[in-house]
Amino acid sequence: MSSHDRIDIQEPTFGAGIWHFGRYVDRYATDGYGPPVDTLAAIDLAGQVGDLSVVDLTFPFDPPDLPVEEVRAALDRNGLRAIAVTPEIYTRRFVKGAFTNPDAGVRREAIELVSRAAEVARLLGCDYVKLWPGQDGWDYPFQVDHSEIWRFSVEGVRELASTFPDLRFAIEYKPREPRNTMVFSSAAKTLLAIDEIGLPNVGVLLDFGHSLYGGESPADAARLAMSRGRLFAIDVNDNHRGWDDDMIVGSVHLTETFEFFHALREARWEGVWQLDQFPFREDSVEAARAGIRVMKSIHRALGLLDHDALTAAQRAQDALAAQRVVQRALLSAMADQ
Amino acid sequence: MSSHDRIDIQEPTFGAGIWHFGRYVDRYATDGYGPPVDTLAAIDLAGQVGDLSVVDLTFPFDPPDLPVEEVRAALDRNGLRAIAVTPEIYTRRFVKGAFTNPDAGVRREAIELVSRAAEVARLLGCDYVKLWPGQDGWDYPFQVDHSEIWRFSVEGVRELASTFPDLRFAIEYKPREPRNTMVFSSAAKTLLAIDEIGLPNVGVLLDFGHSLYGGESPADAARLAMSRGRLFAIDVNDNHRGWDDDMIVGSVHLTETFEFFHALREARWEGVWQLDQFPFREDSVEAARAGIRVMKSIHRALGLLDHDALTAAQRAQDALAAQRVVQRALLSAMADQ
Amino acid sequence: MSSHDRIDIQEPTFGAGIWHFGRYVDRYATDGYGPPVDTLAAIDLAGQVGDLSVVDLTFPFDPPDLPVEEVRAALDRNGLRAIAVTPEIYTRRFVKGAFTNPDAGVRREAIELVSRAAEVARLLGCDYVKLWPGQDGWDYPFQVDHSEIWRFSVEGVRELASTFPDLRFAIEYKPREPRNTMVFSSAAKTLLAIDEIGLPNVGVLLDFGHSLYGGESPADAARLAMSRGRLFAIDVNDNHRGWDDDMIVGSVHLTETFEFFHALREARWEGVWQLDQFPFREDSVEAARAGIRVMKSIHRALGLLDHDALTAAQRAQDALAAQRVVQRALLSAMADQ
Amino acid sequence: MSSHDRIDIQEPTFGAGIWHFGRYVDRYATDGYGPPVDTLAAIDLAGQVGDLSVVDLTFPFDPPDLPVEEVRAALDRNGLRAIAVTPEIYTRRFVKGAFTNPDAGVRREAIELVSRAAEVARLLGCDYVKLWPGQDGWDYPFQVDHSEIWRFSVEGVRELASTFPDLRFAIEYKPREPRNTMVFSSAAKTLLAIDEIGLPNVGVLLDFGHSLYGGESPADAARLAMSRGRLFAIDVNDNHRGWDDDMIVGSVHLTETFEFFHALREARWEGVWQLDQFPFREDSVEAARAGIRVMKSIHRALGLLDHDALTAAQRAQDALAAQRVVQRALLSAMADQ
Repeated sequence: MSSHDRIDIQEPTFGAGIWHFGRYVDRYATDGYGPPVDTLAAIDLAGQVGDLSVVDLTFPFDPPDLPVEEVRAALDRNGLRAIAVTPEIYTRRFVKGAFTNPDAGVRREAIELVSRAAEVARLLGCDYVKLWPGQDGWDYPFQVDHSEIWRFSVEGVRELASTFPDLRFAIEYKPREPRNTMVFSSAAKTLLAIDEIGLPNVGVLLDFGHSLYGGESPADAARLAMSRGRLFAIDVNDNHRGWDDDMIVGSVHLTETFEFFHALREARWEGVWQLDQFPFREDSVEAARAGIRVMKSIHRALGLLDHDALTAAQRAQDALAAQRVVQRALLSAMADQ
Repeated sequence: MSSHDRIDIQEPTFGAGIWHFGRYVDRYATDGYGPPVDTLAAIDLAGQVGDLSVVDLTFPFDPPDLPVEEVRAALDRNGLRAIAVTPEIYTRRFVKGAFTNPDAGVRREAIELVSRAAEVARLLGCDYVKLWPGQDGWDYPFQVDHSEIWRFSVEGVRELASTFPDLRFAIEYKPREPRNTMVFSSAAKTLLAIDEIGLPNVGVLLDFGHSLYGGESPADAARLAMSRGRLFAIDVNDNHRGWDDDMIVGSVHLTETFEFFHALREARWEGVWQLDQFPFREDSVEAARAGIRVMKSIHRALGLLDHDALTAAQRAQDALAAQRVVQRALLSAMADQ
Repeated sequence: MSSHDRIDIQEPTFGAGIWHFGRYVDRYATDGYGPPVDTLAAIDLAGQVGDLSVVDLTFPFDPPDLPVEEVRAALDRNGLRAIAVTPEIYTRRFVKGAFTNPDAGVRREAIELVSRAAEVARLLGCDYVKLWPGQDGWDYPFQVDHSEIWRFSVEGVRELASTFPDLRFAIEYKPREPRNTMVFSSAAKTLLAIDEIGLPNVGVLLDFGHSLYGGESPADAARLAMSRGRLFAIDVNDNHRGWDDDMIVGSVHLTETFEFFHALREARWEGVWQLDQFPFREDSVEAARAGIRVMKSIHRALGLLDHDALTAAQRAQDALAAQRVVQRALLSAMADQ
Repeated sequence: MSSHDRIDIQEPTFGAGIWHFGRYVDRYATDGYGPPVDTLAAIDLAGQVGDLSVVDLTFPFDPPDLPVEEVRAALDRNGLRAIAVTPEIYTRRFVKGAFTNPDAGVRREAIELVSRAAEVARLLGCDYVKLWPGQDGWDYPFQVDHSEIWRFSVEGVRELASTFPDLRFAIEYKPREPRNTMVFSSAAKTLLAIDEIGLPNVGVLLDFGHSLYGGESPADAARLAMSRGRLFAIDVNDNHRGWDDDMIVGSVHLTETFEFFHALREARWEGVWQLDQFPFREDSVEAARAGIRVMKSIHRALGLLDHDALTAAQRAQDALAAQRVVQRALLSAMADQ
């Protein structure tokens, strides 16, 4: 642990889902929390943040016929790169499921939509294609044959990963919403599915908030995925632990967020620190800056942490000693700004 | 209790929120769970259910310039009556709050929108105006001065109830969503607000699901509101106890639902048994029929319940005996169909 | 599915954890919810239930020097068999952990206690040794090195399973309590650990209530464990979905309980239907009878279920149709009694 | 608000429940998390903390015949004062309820036990008698007549408050545990009961953790109780928001804890800052010191808070601005130590 001295800590790369800058709608404010924002406008907003290097792009673009070249140009002029493409396999066509839709034709459409997204990801030189099958699952007891929809999920992802062996596919698990229960609901369950899929290019995208409100310790969930070499990407945000509130990073669970990034660093994980916030009622650029400000403080605090003392406390599983070490590092770093 | 024999039990009146038949949208399926359904079309769908007598209408109508007379005609041709009007004080204009908006001008607009809805309620001969200020509250720690927004809430409702003394206003409380915390979050808190408002024409609309996922026992919450003469209306549905899933009545918590209706009947409460389901992925007419089918079974079970045995069990607070009585009544009634 | 006709359904074997009949204590009623009940007295109470065939015995016995022969005699005279032994690796010696204790000496004591229990299990001809390391986990963020305690857990169970290759070890997972987070917290995580352990004689004991309040669908969790051949045993009870309330079977989640047993039957799983209730304030014999009464009704309902209709509904993922089928079967069976 | 300058801030008085220093038991570690600690030994441990001025004493003492004079002497030699007495109306005699017990004789015993505690409170010059009827409520649907047990609760407290008009009675509400639902489950519900009781000497003890895991915002709950002049006392601790974990103050919800104390200060509430932690696996003296260390940091941070900026942010309900102000104050204060 002594090798973790301050010198080797490089500022991380920051990213965001492009939807962070989009227009939000929900079942009550059906006319939206603001005016529409199309793909190019959202990229320009992301560019205004100042500290973002990469974005995760939803696909199809808005408008759907927007040429990839225009997207690339917008990214370029904002100093951004597309780290991932997220195919929208959760809109009206797929409300009864994408990979798990009872209609084989719709399942095929889901594969095709992801395939088109994968080709765009290739064009844009992305690191991964994100799979978030939010409509795949069930709402009611007895509604589905769990074996069947598990099989559909495994087969769908396997087909994609086989077809695009040069790309990586990151499954973003989530306990629920919009489905009352999602098939890929936890880190462990997703790792079991990956085990069944049996291909090297399928991994996990761990969303801090999903992990937290799913009852996991995000640091431990990351550890589990990393121990199998499957932590492909992360998203961060915060919530009140009962729902995916997608709040500003560190606004509620500052200590757990710090623990999460500490776990990544201990394992020498080197991916992007990526925002997945939904600032429904806030300015999206300012909200991104607020999230990054907290992440920078956390990063600085990692450099201040007394690793030897923390290691000793953890060996003894001494909660009081560990808290003392952590509060000393975390809170002075925050004050520095 | 002996007076509760089968003879005196009349079939209850069934109702539904008109949104039950509308088009759902959420933050993922932003293009909706189906095509748009305007007010008249929704009323016609409600008419198809067959067992509905009343509906609660959202206002403004869709389209906004739809004349009240056309609404009335649609209700008439479907054998329906408007039991309530629900002003939409939670759409884009009000995403930062209606009664509690930081902008006094928007607070005024909220009062005006409700006032217009109240006039429509008068025209349609409704029983009450429903107030559901779902955007009134806060998302983050330290975001608001809780005293101020409580005062705003109390004053807003008081002004309306004073201005329309001939109408009744029913506050529908809910723990959260779309705000992370709502001001009117529980039965007890709403009753305290009503106490401060100090007017006879303000009461509670108790939504079974809101009560359940807010950690209340709905039967006990109803008891509390009735003990103060303030239970103006109810909505029923079901959920997995972590969110307002608005599922089909009785699909998860059959026993608690039965207990809720039993509490109403013991207190001789005589309002409408009203649906507030969101059948995102189901046929809305069939979903309403399913909910009513369960409510009819519950109603029949109330007639079969051995009240003397239940009263004895409750006197002794004997959970095993109470369950036995309840299962005997409830489950045979269900089997009858 | 057509082979599931009524004829092939044999009444299941019923069992219970012996603690069901013991004396409860908690952090408030430190003088207990009743007088002490020792091992032989608890066995005699289990015998009074009338429908129990097997019990799971905690070890050490009470008193600790009670000879195995006396236990066997008590079982015999009550027509019972010991299906399992549960070593108490969660009492004072182990409050900081059994397999994961920071002190290597205490970890060794835990292995030794389980080993002694395993020998008793052999003597009694049990089906499995149950491992419930309820103190293995953490309470606070940063308290532990998650990799280390995962490794401790895997190694501890592996050593035991290697040492006793003729016995089966069933890990009972649980989200939390008494630890704020347990290492073996979900079905999926436990299956990943079993995968790492790499031995055939380690499996899962699925407690319905643990699964439910951990956010799983118990039917789906059972499916997952069975798909890997690792569902060694089950416990049933009920709760309000926020804690391990260990209530009477079916008292809250009747439909999910039915779905759970349906999943077991579809997979032709043939183990014991076992109670893990904590009737703090009820008569323990009567509470066991109440749980069994519900299980018998559920069993009968499995025979009445229209499998073809249910299969069709599930193929279509039609929640309304599935509910209709289920309510018809479940509720008439209950009425029969 | 400008009057809140640093000068007027006096260090608060710190207190603790004496059980903080006692011996813990739960339903698994029935032999306790350590050896027994009697009343005098617990007082001596409290004295070792160094920053405690007052303690809340459970009654009967341990042993039950311990003379009040010996307790007073132990308090004196440790520089402590008894701020309250907490009658144990939740032990074996009362597991089916104290004020709500179905047996009138046991209800009378509860009144008598509290009365004896009240007399001891007089002798010791306490500020209040704490009422925590943790066994008063219900476990199952249909188990009780909610009206009856509400009436029992109101009448029980009213009788006590009438009998001892010179003493104050503080009801500590809690959502649940040990009962699955408690009668006094939230701030608002308790205030409604106090309203019905109709006496000036009955108020609320707000436990931060109970409020948090009950879904309240503790700052808002305090505001509500203070607005009616009924916030008699507070307890602080922390939890993971799903249960009453009674963890070290600030270990999870630092920002909410700060907001809570800020709300008290804004309202010029001047009571004791009191610990209610359960350090099951930690040294109780060190755990108390850790809690107080965090409270002192929070107190210092209150002095550093830019009140004008916070007021402006809250007027605008601007979450981002409020967080910025708060993080600046809170985190530098923590770093100071």
